Amino acid sequence: MERQLWKYEDREYPNIALNAVAGRSRENYGVDPVRFDEMLPGCWDPHARLADMDLDGVWGALCFPSFARFACTVFLDGKDKDLALLCVQAYNDFMLDEWCPVAPDRYIPLVGLPLWDPEAAIKEVQRTAAKGAKAVMFPEHPHNLGLPSFYTDHWDGLFSAIEETEMPIAMHFGSGGSAPAIAPGAPLATMITMFATNSMGTLTDLLFAPTLHRHPRLKVGLSEGGIGWIPYMLERADYVWERHRFYQNVDQSTRPSELFHRNMHGCFISDEAGVQARHLIGVDSITWESDYPHSDSNWPHSRKMAEEVFRDVPDEEVHRMAELNVRRLYNFPDTSAEVPATPVGASR
Amino acid sequence: MERQLWKYEDREYPNIALNAVAGRSRENYGVDPVRFDEMLPGCWDPHARLADMDLDGVWGALCFPSFARFACTVFLDGKDKDLALLCVQAYNDFMLDEWCPVAPDRYIPLVGLPLWDPEAAIKEVQRTAAKGAKAVMFPEHPHNLGLPSFYTDHWDGLFSAIEETEMPIAMHFGSGGSAPAIAPGAPLATMITMFATNSMGTLTDLLFAPTLHRHPRLKVGLSEGGIGWIPYMLERADYVWERHRFYQNVDQSTRPSELFHRNMHGCFISDEAGVQARHLIGVDSITWESDYPHSDSNWPHSRKMAEEVFRDVPDEEVHRMAELNVRRLYNFPDTSAEVPATPVGASR
Repeated sequence: MERQLWKYEDREYPNIALNAVAGRSRENYGVDPVRFDEMLPGCWDPHARLADMDLDGVWGALCFPSFARFACTVFLDGKDKDLALLCVQAYNDFMLDEWCPVAPDRYIPLVGLPLWDPEAAIKEVQRTAAKGAKAVMFPEHPHNLGLPSFYTDHWDGLFSAIEETEMPIAMHFGSGGSAPAIAPGAPLATMITMFATNSMGTLTDLLFAPTLHRHPRLKVGLSEGGIGWIPYMLERADYVWERHRFYQNVDQSTRPSELFHRNMHGCFISDEAGVQARHLIGVDSITWESDYPHSDSNWPHSRKMAEEVFRDVPDEEVHRMAELNVRRLYNFPDTSAEVPATPVGASR
Repeated sequence: MERQLWKYEDREYPNIALNAVAGRSRENYGVDPVRFDEMLPGCWDPHARLADMDLDGVWGALCFPSFARFACTVFLDGKDKDLALLCVQAYNDFMLDEWCPVAPDRYIPLVGLPLWDPEAAIKEVQRTAAKGAKAVMFPEHPHNLGLPSFYTDHWDGLFSAIEETEMPIAMHFGSGGSAPAIAPGAPLATMITMFATNSMGTLTDLLFAPTLHRHPRLKVGLSEGGIGWIPYMLERADYVWERHRFYQNVDQSTRPSELFHRNMHGCFISDEAGVQARHLIGVDSITWESDYPHSDSNWPHSRKMAEEVFRDVPDEEVHRMAELNVRRLYNFPDTSAEVPATPVGASR
């Protein structure tokens, strides 16, 4: 059987099986490249995806790209930046004109940016917002991609433009150009286990950088980072700030945890620890996701898994974490005539 | 005023102020080198230390080295390995013959190893155990120090020898030769906030490496790593193991979290999130510490801070976390005539 690859300029990009394992038994998980006909059609067909979401008890979805990577960072690789800009715009138009219109009350339009050019990125924010975009992707560790860090004024114009649109920024773990370091001989499982440390770094940066002070209305989602570690990290950041701010270039008046509660939200698939600690995180700062079609997904059993993780939580709080928070944060009101009777949420 | 430095072979090692700030106001924290006469005598005099512990309501202490680093890893820098071995032995004999005998019912003897030579390390384990050592230091990420990782058989003889003595291994965060990476322009506060990610890496390695399968009685303490993140990481490790073990070189029969509950314990200074989640961690896998004289210490208010963090916890559980777990794990029974009436714990 011939392979199928994405080709971009002179580079080839395979589809990793782990990114399209929904429906496979775990014994058949693997990291080899796969062909499109080896995946569920829901991986690439927005109609089939809806059927798979229905099967899973999932109403809404914020869909991230695969080949283009979580923040369209693949286009940073491009030598021809005119072509790269056209590619970002083509991806966004595909989302806005083809994928999401299949079910505009269920697909939340998420767009990427030409990250190498903040002026072009501002224009793309404005162009896509005018066409109905609801959220913007941005890499969790821009400095690991050769871009300026959050500790610069480089992004201020862009973040102001995003703030203006009221779109949240989705910073997906693994979007920052670096994976957790693993020991020689360690299995890939250790890297997968440790991936939330990426989101911890992003959280920490945004708690200590000028970003959220300069952009008090910016909304940041730590997509797929899990939530069980958030109470510890907020407490730790405050503890460090209380002791170490005096000799350092950090804001002297706002406790870091306040920035999280005001500006950020986390996201989980299955996270007993986080759900138990939800009042330390803030119930309104938590969203649920299904991860379809990736390897963390419980498809087609997401509803069953959600039922288990939410079993001791009052229905009203479940409703907020599984639906209402996404609707509020992503400006995605319920416009459907039929409201599903069971808890629903946003998957990616 | 002249500087004071440690000189070892041709290298100079300053004392970092942050490592001896007990008694300073936080406005006077800093990273400059300090002289011994700028520190509290409790930093270097075991009699003065006891007085400071009394003031703080702390009964026992497991003391880690400063110049020698948390796992005596400074001696890995030594070119003359005969000298390096003599230095490790001198440090251990100082602990066993001079520091701890000042209050043998309050100081828990903790020793270092010649990590570059497993055979010599085995001998040092046996020599010091015979002299009364109660715990052994080992670096959290040996591979980042140029040593073989946990995913080898290199350490098996040593770990068997340690297992034989029933001494726990103290893996202090920051002992592994690597600090959390920070972004360009980021303040040191971000690194301090993120330090527990080192312990997360160590936990993850020990959950997926052969170590605890081959050494079922080995006890490992994640010294100073905090505990609030442990429930998330255990749950995450199990989640990954359930999905990804089939195509990877990991144990196929034991859930990773079981290894933590059987072999490991965590340690915290002030950690509301962890104390709230204590039943997910296991009350018997938690120890409390004061961090004196480092910058995370609340000295001389440790008792007040402990009271706050333990306020909603039944006394019996507080007693286990603040005293009894250390006595059991470190084979350090209560031999004092006077049992203190207030919660006590092991500090470093």
